[in-house]
Amino acid sequence: MSFAISFADVWSAAERLKGAATVTPVHTSRTLNAMTEREVFIKCENFQRTGSFKFRGAYNAINRLSDEQLEKGIVAFSSGNHGQAVALVAKLHHAPAIIVTPSDVAPSKLTAMRGYGAEIVTYDRLKEDRVAIGKQLAAERGMTVVPPYDHPHVMAGQGTLALEWLQAVPKLDALVIPVGGGGLIAGCAIAAKGINPNIRIFGVETEGADDTKLSLRKGERVAVPPPSTIADGIRTPMPGELTFPIVQALVEDIAVVSDAATLEAMRFLIWRMKLVTEPTGAITLAALLNGLIPVECRRVGLLLCGGNIASFDGV
Amino acid sequence: MSFAISFADVWSAAERLKGAATVTPVHTSRTLNAMTEREVFIKCENFQRTGSFKFRGAYNAINRLSDEQLEKGIVAFSSGNHGQAVALVAKLHHAPAIIVTPSDVAPSKLTAMRGYGAEIVTYDRLKEDRVAIGKQLAAERGMTVVPPYDHPHVMAGQGTLALEWLQAVPKLDALVIPVGGGGLIAGCAIAAKGINPNIRIFGVETEGADDTKLSLRKGERVAVPPPSTIADGIRTPMPGELTFPIVQALVEDIAVVSDAATLEAMRFLIWRMKLVTEPTGAITLAALLNGLIPVECRRVGLLLCGGNIASFDGV
Repeated sequence: MSFAISFADVWSAAERLKGAATVTPVHTSRTLNAMTEREVFIKCENFQRTGSFKFRGAYNAINRLSDEQLEKGIVAFSSGNHGQAVALVAKLHHAPAIIVTPSDVAPSKLTAMRGYGAEIVTYDRLKEDRVAIGKQLAAERGMTVVPPYDHPHVMAGQGTLALEWLQAVPKLDALVIPVGGGGLIAGCAIAAKGINPNIRIFGVETEGADDTKLSLRKGERVAVPPPSTIADGIRTPMPGELTFPIVQALVEDIAVVSDAATLEAMRFLIWRMKLVTEPTGAITLAALLNGLIPVECRRVGLLLCGGNIASFDGV
Repeated sequence: MSFAISFADVWSAAERLKGAATVTPVHTSRTLNAMTEREVFIKCENFQRTGSFKFRGAYNAINRLSDEQLEKGIVAFSSGNHGQAVALVAKLHHAPAIIVTPSDVAPSKLTAMRGYGAEIVTYDRLKEDRVAIGKQLAAERGMTVVPPYDHPHVMAGQGTLALEWLQAVPKLDALVIPVGGGGLIAGCAIAAKGINPNIRIFGVETEGADDTKLSLRKGERVAVPPPSTIADGIRTPMPGELTFPIVQALVEDIAVVSDAATLEAMRFLIWRMKLVTEPTGAITLAALLNGLIPVECRRVGLLLCGGNIASFDGV
């Protein structure tokens, strides 16, 4: 079957991102290796521009727009990180941007988006449809929608981080990656399998936000009620149309972790490894610490996808 | 005049630390560069083993002890980071360790030291003399004291970070370094001036902990009352006997920052740069943000000396 993106698309995105995106570091911890009896390699996208991997997809999508499209501007709907990324990338391209964001978004994310000069439109996450709001705005003003995950350029952009990761750390047995709408894991799976067809790809969701786990089990995309997990980056109710076939084909399994396990993993990353992570950034470590990654995977890559934490309360 | 350590001592320490200490990364921020109109290179010793640069000096000192000395064990007196470092390094050398630490030390530091298997002896920071306590313990049990700064092997060990820094970032105009007892800045100054005699070295202290600033002004070591600054890593009341002549000769000036400015700098490092820093780790950025580093210094190195934060309250 044919996927929405190819390995070549990720390579092409990597060329486009050169000099714009940060080549983020991979951190290790002797303590963590001893605790888990593995070699763990944490890819630190919290150090990416705007504090998450979302910069990559937004840049790859917006950088391909025509001068006319850039002049009319960009609309994004986002729980925060994609919005921050689009706001900055639009600014870098001198394009106006409107971000449609839930009314309960973290204040720090709101401040950042406004700081990049974006116009903010809020909506009620539990009652309103952000896609409809975004599309209507785009139609009214002739702006281009840059969706958060279900778009080939966005998916290919996110995949660039896996290229960097496998170039920095050879011979990884597995990559463990958070799953929201699936753009991140789809892009990374295409990239990683392109380099090493034997690498194993595991996704992670939190309890109540396990729409991809349920969809894989059912063999088709299913929706869950609006998730209430602390992992605010993966509160998407359903896998993407373009992302899901890639997840079905290339992702071996989805681990599901609790909010409590996520908090515990956050504490390790923050207090021991000195890495500021948002909750979603810690769910991959939570999966590993809770025994959800097969023991045969000796050299394991965990993705710390972002560092835009709303508060340190409880951490 | 002759200093307690030479450039060759730092090189020799670097050889000894190879494979034991982490080669810590240097982080940059486009936002910070724009804010300060400089190129800023933050050396991240928060990612060093035990969470601060102190591992380097402790390792260089303890690794040189005889088998007999290691068997009898090691005593350290420390406000926390040196204690953690000595506790881990002693464990790596299978040597017993006693850490003499203030009774108001951060609980996370205490947990870490106990985790490394060290015996803890507490004292009242405002009333008792930690040096006397440490020396008495050492005499009673035949143990070796590894002092926190006033020791050639400790100073040379700390200097290794400056070697790494200048190898990673060429053509720095200035290094900005926190000053407690002076072991860190003395070691780094010897290393940096050995590589580039024209590099400018600035120290930073906080209000009330400005014993080195006052000592430089007076031309001799003077003591201040027990400092109450939030920068718990530099609450030393007086410069060291061995460190001070190096500071006098090689450090151009000491910037003094407030606790409020330190907190502001911490917020930038944590929320924007996603770097967990303890208060002392942020005082170099506070000095830069408060205009205390000469504008002719275009490429500026700031040392983030440690990440062992006691709490995120107020951050």
